[in-house]
Amino acid sequence: MNVSPNELREFSLKCFIAYGVPRDQAEVVVDHLIMASLRGVDSHGIIRLPYYLNGIEKGYVKPAAKIKILRETPVTALIDGGMGLGIFVATYSTRLAIRKAKSSGIVLVGAKNLGHVGMLAYYTKLLAENGLIGFACANGPSLVAPWGGRERIFGTNPISVGFPVNGKPVIIDMATSAMASFRIRLAKIKGEKIPNDAALDKEGRPTNDPEAALKGVLLPFGGHKGYAFSLMVEILSSALLGAPMSKEIIHHPSTQGGFLVAALDASIFRNYEDYKRDILKIIELIKKCEPMHGVKEVLLPGEPEELIYEKRVKTGIPIDQETWKRLLEIAEKLGIAPPKIMRSP
Amino acid sequence: MNVSPNELREFSLKCFIAYGVPRDQAEVVVDHLIMASLRGVDSHGIIRLPYYLNGIEKGYVKPAAKIKILRETPVTALIDGGMGLGIFVATYSTRLAIRKAKSSGIVLVGAKNLGHVGMLAYYTKLLAENGLIGFACANGPSLVAPWGGRERIFGTNPISVGFPVNGKPVIIDMATSAMASFRIRLAKIKGEKIPNDAALDKEGRPTNDPEAALKGVLLPFGGHKGYAFSLMVEILSSALLGAPMSKEIIHHPSTQGGFLVAALDASIFRNYEDYKRDILKIIELIKKCEPMHGVKEVLLPGEPEELIYEKRVKTGIPIDQETWKRLLEIAEKLGIAPPKIMRSP
Repeated sequence: MNVSPNELREFSLKCFIAYGVPRDQAEVVVDHLIMASLRGVDSHGIIRLPYYLNGIEKGYVKPAAKIKILRETPVTALIDGGMGLGIFVATYSTRLAIRKAKSSGIVLVGAKNLGHVGMLAYYTKLLAENGLIGFACANGPSLVAPWGGRERIFGTNPISVGFPVNGKPVIIDMATSAMASFRIRLAKIKGEKIPNDAALDKEGRPTNDPEAALKGVLLPFGGHKGYAFSLMVEILSSALLGAPMSKEIIHHPSTQGGFLVAALDASIFRNYEDYKRDILKIIELIKKCEPMHGVKEVLLPGEPEELIYEKRVKTGIPIDQETWKRLLEIAEKLGIAPPKIMRSP
Repeated sequence: MNVSPNELREFSLKCFIAYGVPRDQAEVVVDHLIMASLRGVDSHGIIRLPYYLNGIEKGYVKPAAKIKILRETPVTALIDGGMGLGIFVATYSTRLAIRKAKSSGIVLVGAKNLGHVGMLAYYTKLLAENGLIGFACANGPSLVAPWGGRERIFGTNPISVGFPVNGKPVIIDMATSAMASFRIRLAKIKGEKIPNDAALDKEGRPTNDPEAALKGVLLPFGGHKGYAFSLMVEILSSALLGAPMSKEIIHHPSTQGGFLVAALDASIFRNYEDYKRDILKIIELIKKCEPMHGVKEVLLPGEPEELIYEKRVKTGIPIDQETWKRLLEIAEKLGIAPPKIMRSP
């Protein structure tokens, strides 16, 4: 079934406020979850609402983040998120990065002691809308083996990079694992196989059975090269900031390790107009590229998400049965009216 | 046959000087080529000497780089390399980054109008030896298709990232293509197949025949995720700096597009000792990781190169027949004694 973004927004806001989250913090978190759902990044969208509330109940995250700036220079800052909702802390960190980058050109902001930061594309989009090239990464609960290994050492350790282009930034956002564990669970429910190079079973052998994969370990994308990026994110998000290693993070959909965001003024080396003209040339080359055999069209990173966004803004956000059941339970528990189901036009 | 690093160093130095390269610039380039060969990165080692000299002859690179700083702030600089030998210009840029990072914590230096920069690990190692986390990238002549496409749009667009660890930094260095074109040529000579997902033939179909691959196009590593990194390097190395796009670069082993290096003081957010303790914990987890079925040991990025380095420092640098022939031709042409062949101990 489909639900309108506004219905979901109002409902989620009431839930967070009922759990003691200050309205300004709740608004940031809800805006993020709705945007993730609209972009088709369902694993980081409205599905997370029940888990975030559960994380507050369990004490993994605190409803009201009390943010402290631990260290600061004109080009850097280290944030203590006070174990608040990660999306609020990471958005605060990103906005601080924007203010600093406008005056000094480049900036690096780290955050530790925070919950799950959601979809990294949210932050690099925010940076790109402010004319900034952005980088963001975070480590999470351990699920992924280093290349050649069979133990869970890294989180799915995502990376996002964004480039401003008038109105339509190029947004890269990916887990450094071959597959997200969420998608493996989906394959299990649907009775589908997973690719051969995405996971190992308990005995350390490649498997395409999602159930065996969930008992085993995920693999990094792209073999030893993807592994290098998993490790890079791990170091940047933990050792550099003093945040926990992936192995030290509690396994729960509301938790995260450290979060790092970097921003760079796109006009630091030349006029923005020159940068824009040249990035548009690269984009044009890609859009006009002859597709390989069996492929219709070459897409830019982030383009599939934008296409889903344009569709879902009109048709509403699809909610799976399990999540819908949870939302109804929460509504009943809190005495809030559940979101209305949208009639398709 | 094997040749001692010192013999190769002396010989190469004389060649560059005979071609009009100032001694201080030649020393930097030769040190780099020897280090690449010692680390087993043969494609960026002594093999390049004849090509670099040929690039000077053809006018693609100038023997004496006249470097200009076009723009500068406390945290950034843009270098014009005057079309000099890329290794000299990139090393100059990296040393400037080191000086700036020591005072401001983070820094970004770009360079344009320069020849081939060699092995990026050289620069991130230099940064790591100075306590700096480093990032370097460069674009090159177009060989690689975007994911789903069949046209040569990107170079092999390498990325390197380095992390200081007492004495033994972690050094990541990779092409963002699935395979280097050099390795595909090697497979052709040896009559070997290449992996299925490394290249397309002229008709845009996946191929494991190296000859068909060389007539077709290389693919990015790791599917659409690796493609995103190819694109990232392309934008950072060209549009950001005002350097040529990969498609605009002359195809020759002495050429390059733009070069970007970023450095970050590892103690910017906490004491270096704390950072060191925690990165060593991550390294220990990886080194103790149970290997997957059929694998002996889990290695860190850069570890295979370090193992080759330790061996070749003793046994000398192996030179293939073709390169040896070229070195002898150059020796004769310039009236310089060729390097002596090393007797194995």
